[in-house]
Amino acid sequence: MSHFEVVAFDADDTLWHNERLYVSAQAKLKALLAQYHSPEWIEERLYQTEMRNLQHFGYGIKAFALSMIETAVQLSEGRIAGSDVQAIIDSAKEMLAADVELLEHAAETLAGLAQTYALMLITKGDLRDQELKIARSGLAQHFRHVEIVSDKSRESYHRLLQRHSIAPERFLMVGNSLRSDILPVLALGANAVYIPYQLTWAHESAERPSAEQPGFYELEHLGLLPELLERVEGQEIQETSK
Amino acid sequence: MSHFEVVAFDADDTLWHNERLYVSAQAKLKALLAQYHSPEWIEERLYQTEMRNLQHFGYGIKAFALSMIETAVQLSEGRIAGSDVQAIIDSAKEMLAADVELLEHAAETLAGLAQTYALMLITKGDLRDQELKIARSGLAQHFRHVEIVSDKSRESYHRLLQRHSIAPERFLMVGNSLRSDILPVLALGANAVYIPYQLTWAHESAERPSAEQPGFYELEHLGLLPELLERVEGQEIQETSK
Repeated sequence: MSHFEVVAFDADDTLWHNERLYVSAQAKLKALLAQYHSPEWIEERLYQTEMRNLQHFGYGIKAFALSMIETAVQLSEGRIAGSDVQAIIDSAKEMLAADVELLEHAAETLAGLAQTYALMLITKGDLRDQELKIARSGLAQHFRHVEIVSDKSRESYHRLLQRHSIAPERFLMVGNSLRSDILPVLALGANAVYIPYQLTWAHESAERPSAEQPGFYELEHLGLLPELLERVEGQEIQETSK
Repeated sequence: MSHFEVVAFDADDTLWHNERLYVSAQAKLKALLAQYHSPEWIEERLYQTEMRNLQHFGYGIKAFALSMIETAVQLSEGRIAGSDVQAIIDSAKEMLAADVELLEHAAETLAGLAQTYALMLITKGDLRDQELKIARSGLAQHFRHVEIVSDKSRESYHRLLQRHSIAPERFLMVGNSLRSDILPVLALGANAVYIPYQLTWAHESAERPSAEQPGFYELEHLGLLPELLERVEGQEIQETSK
């Protein structure tokens, strides 16, 4: 029997590129507001607006679009042109319609691991947007369960594990966000593999657990995951047979 | 044994008031745009924008807010003031923060039926917004399962019934939208109780099934549901004992 029963994956920036869509929409916003403020100030104010609006709008592209519009109104002191407001809405539509571009190693790693483990996808954001991306990704058939949640907290992982009757020590989460994929999972006594992505939204950053933290692993890319799992399962067998 | 195993409820305008929040936000939009167009034309153009944006934004308040802003930009030919754009965003925030006001009979009907049936809540829209409303409603404890879906089609009901291993003939859906709660459910051979609400979004309207359609029931209000269920269960016993 494998040590791990369920291997769960975050989606955005773990299996496919996502943050770069936000960065590119932000670049357009900075260009629209260039006559009013510096790019740094626009970025800071947008982030403040997003954080203030999180309680109203939650995560996802529609929330981001509304925060971009609000930032544009405020930073232009109300002088933003209607056509520029439309340009922001259009850039949100482009984000929603963007092709899903898989990260390197994602397809073959999932296909391989699905032979041994029950795979789960756990992602947060707009329900519909995430569903469409999963469908477009071509990866849906590898997952036993797909869970789209409004937030990834210790409580939401706890509810998921309970609902699926998974013991924390037999659950492994793989993701690029320390705040959402790693720390709440470790706090439950489950296991987590952190695979940093080249871009991280400030809100998702958090302090890295120490290398000695039980159940915590870090990898450079997804292609290294099967080897890590074999190593951990091997250790498990050694410990069991002692 | 009861004939029905699961009684499922739509949420918005079936258990609590919702459409009137949209109507009131629309009234504010009409006031903002009064200098440009008639209320009827604003309403028509807003609806067209919502329908065009459905493929991008799906359902829910954030989608509605983005469509209101787009309509305002277009109907003012780009002259909409930044402060008016902010007013639209603020009215979306008010909608999201609004108290959940239960419909008459909702609380006692659910409390009573939960003694006999597994109750389910099936609602569409923003994941986070719906979760918050369910929590605020005080009704959460009556439901065995809560399902928030991005669309209510024949396929999405089929998947739900499969996932929960419910035979269609033992499933009863209660809701105010012919298009989302009644027709797709009847199409699966399941049962549906239509309880019209005083306001209906044009998109949710559809032709009423004939009174002879098997499994179709219509009630004036939720308070009549327990009596209907007793009557149907009684007929079932008679037919079985024939």
